[in-house]
Amino acid sequence: MTSDNYFSLKFESGYLVYLDQTRLPSIESYITTDDYKRVAESIKCLEIRGAPLIGIAAAYALALSQKEAYCEDVFNEAFSVLASTRPTAVNLFVALNRMKSLHDRLPEKDRNFGNFCREAMSIHREDELMCEAIAQNGADILPDDCTILTHCNTGKLATGGIGTAFGVIRRAFEQGKIKKVYADETRPLFQGLRLTSFELHKTGIPYTIITESTAGVLIRDKKINAVITGADRIARNGDAANKLGTFTLSVLCKHHGIPFFIAAPSTTIDLEAKAFSDIPIEERKGDELLRYLDKTYSNQHFEAYNPSFDVTPAENIDGIITEKGVFRYPFSFK
Amino acid sequence: MTSDNYFSLKFESGYLVYLDQTRLPSIESYITTDDYKRVAESIKCLEIRGAPLIGIAAAYALALSQKEAYCEDVFNEAFSVLASTRPTAVNLFVALNRMKSLHDRLPEKDRNFGNFCREAMSIHREDELMCEAIAQNGADILPDDCTILTHCNTGKLATGGIGTAFGVIRRAFEQGKIKKVYADETRPLFQGLRLTSFELHKTGIPYTIITESTAGVLIRDKKINAVITGADRIARNGDAANKLGTFTLSVLCKHHGIPFFIAAPSTTIDLEAKAFSDIPIEERKGDELLRYLDKTYSNQHFEAYNPSFDVTPAENIDGIITEKGVFRYPFSFK
Repeated sequence: MTSDNYFSLKFESGYLVYLDQTRLPSIESYITTDDYKRVAESIKCLEIRGAPLIGIAAAYALALSQKEAYCEDVFNEAFSVLASTRPTAVNLFVALNRMKSLHDRLPEKDRNFGNFCREAMSIHREDELMCEAIAQNGADILPDDCTILTHCNTGKLATGGIGTAFGVIRRAFEQGKIKKVYADETRPLFQGLRLTSFELHKTGIPYTIITESTAGVLIRDKKINAVITGADRIARNGDAANKLGTFTLSVLCKHHGIPFFIAAPSTTIDLEAKAFSDIPIEERKGDELLRYLDKTYSNQHFEAYNPSFDVTPAENIDGIITEKGVFRYPFSFK
Repeated sequence: MTSDNYFSLKFESGYLVYLDQTRLPSIESYITTDDYKRVAESIKCLEIRGAPLIGIAAAYALALSQKEAYCEDVFNEAFSVLASTRPTAVNLFVALNRMKSLHDRLPEKDRNFGNFCREAMSIHREDELMCEAIAQNGADILPDDCTILTHCNTGKLATGGIGTAFGVIRRAFEQGKIKKVYADETRPLFQGLRLTSFELHKTGIPYTIITESTAGVLIRDKKINAVITGADRIARNGDAANKLGTFTLSVLCKHHGIPFFIAAPSTTIDLEAKAFSDIPIEERKGDELLRYLDKTYSNQHFEAYNPSFDVTPAENIDGIITEKGVFRYPFSFK
């Protein structure tokens, strides 16, 4: 029997409590802190990850920077520390800007920890509700007896609710529509192998883990009915940045006539970004490729290129599933 | 300064001496044996790997089974043990059948260790010469200032000579044509990250290691001029089995108009296999995906699908570079 008795992040008695995702699935250990710098560090080193969850954590962290007493300088400092953690996911900036806008709107006497916390909790709660709506909208368009392929991690561990792509799969599974899920292991940090496997197991959905290269064969052989992934930022034309590997999946789907869907809250759509080239792509250190290798590995001349995200062009995306409904190509988000 | 002072396999004083490829690049350690069962084990567990090298090792191992004295039963037993090590690479069967055919041809009085050794040495030497010719034929068709992407490992570690795809790159580099090589890390066993990086470093070729997913972005952005891989078995129509991930590369190349080449000795062409469906694909244990993870990894419900090879359809292949010349699509090998 399985049960999903875990949570990614909660705010309790003035502290942020969150699962250390770098230790999963071996160890379920929670970090408790009221220090915004610790939260910023956790976002940087991926103890907290997933575009929507990063936004929620950053909002709480900004509130926590005002726990002792209101101080505008500290607020601004915390804002910029948190904003500089990761560049690609737009949710981080949306959440921080919303906190800042509340700050600017409030008369000085009301700029207090309580009010900042309430705003962060609203962001959290709204994300939870958006996940529910995304899940329902996505499940509605899936046929019966589906085998789905997904990439990276987009469940409770990545959001404030049941997830984006994972939420769709979960809701469709509850409706009896899902036969099986294939999850890409997701190099180099194994979010699929470590995190999505953890969530699939916890929710009792039948699954198989594969390398990214195996996806090509499954798509060619029509062993899957659709690919669904999340997104970290979607441009106005529908070009969508997501975990590296998403683009390749979209090309494989296009080439073989398999539907490719993105599931994300509408806050992921960045109307400021016209297309592809307006989305900054985070590049992480090459030694992330070595992290899981034998510690004695000693090829000192090793050089690696390690972008964290890629951008899938709008024309490769059959639908973008949001809480407002499913947008179809060609996309118009107005 | 670099130097390629390593060898994958040599036959010396009645013993087979070979580099244990599972310990590279950390440790360069050689195994010395005259026990054919030990060689069979090494092929199974990938201490010896690479389609041509497997064939050479198996030929020597079959000879070694007759070291003490000629015994037909032992010869046949060794043949079947060696033939059952790995199913996909055709070179194994070509080499074993050649040894068997010598055996059957020889009068009983000449069926001795020396004669079997000489045949194995011929197979080895011929492979070395084929590598030279493949390298030359391939280098000839590459333009100047090339950036090449390759997959898995196809150098000295995979063959009896300087390699197949790697040999082409190496010869072109000596001719001043190669600016840079991108090497896929090659999940799940990291042949690119561990072995090709080792060989590129030893030969002084500038290189960068990438995840398979990064290849998609580089191909889309035209950051590479051609993809060259090896092959484990090529069907009569040109469909080519190679390390899992090759197929996806070929689709990405096709989609973006980048030339995709296979380099392999003509012995890799299996005229018995009409196409795709006649090539057996080895499936290895799913826990290979976990091998490099934290030892405390404990998701006991982990299930993985782990085919070792995939087949690239002939129409995705621009050219097959052999020692006899470069075949172009549509392929006719007669």
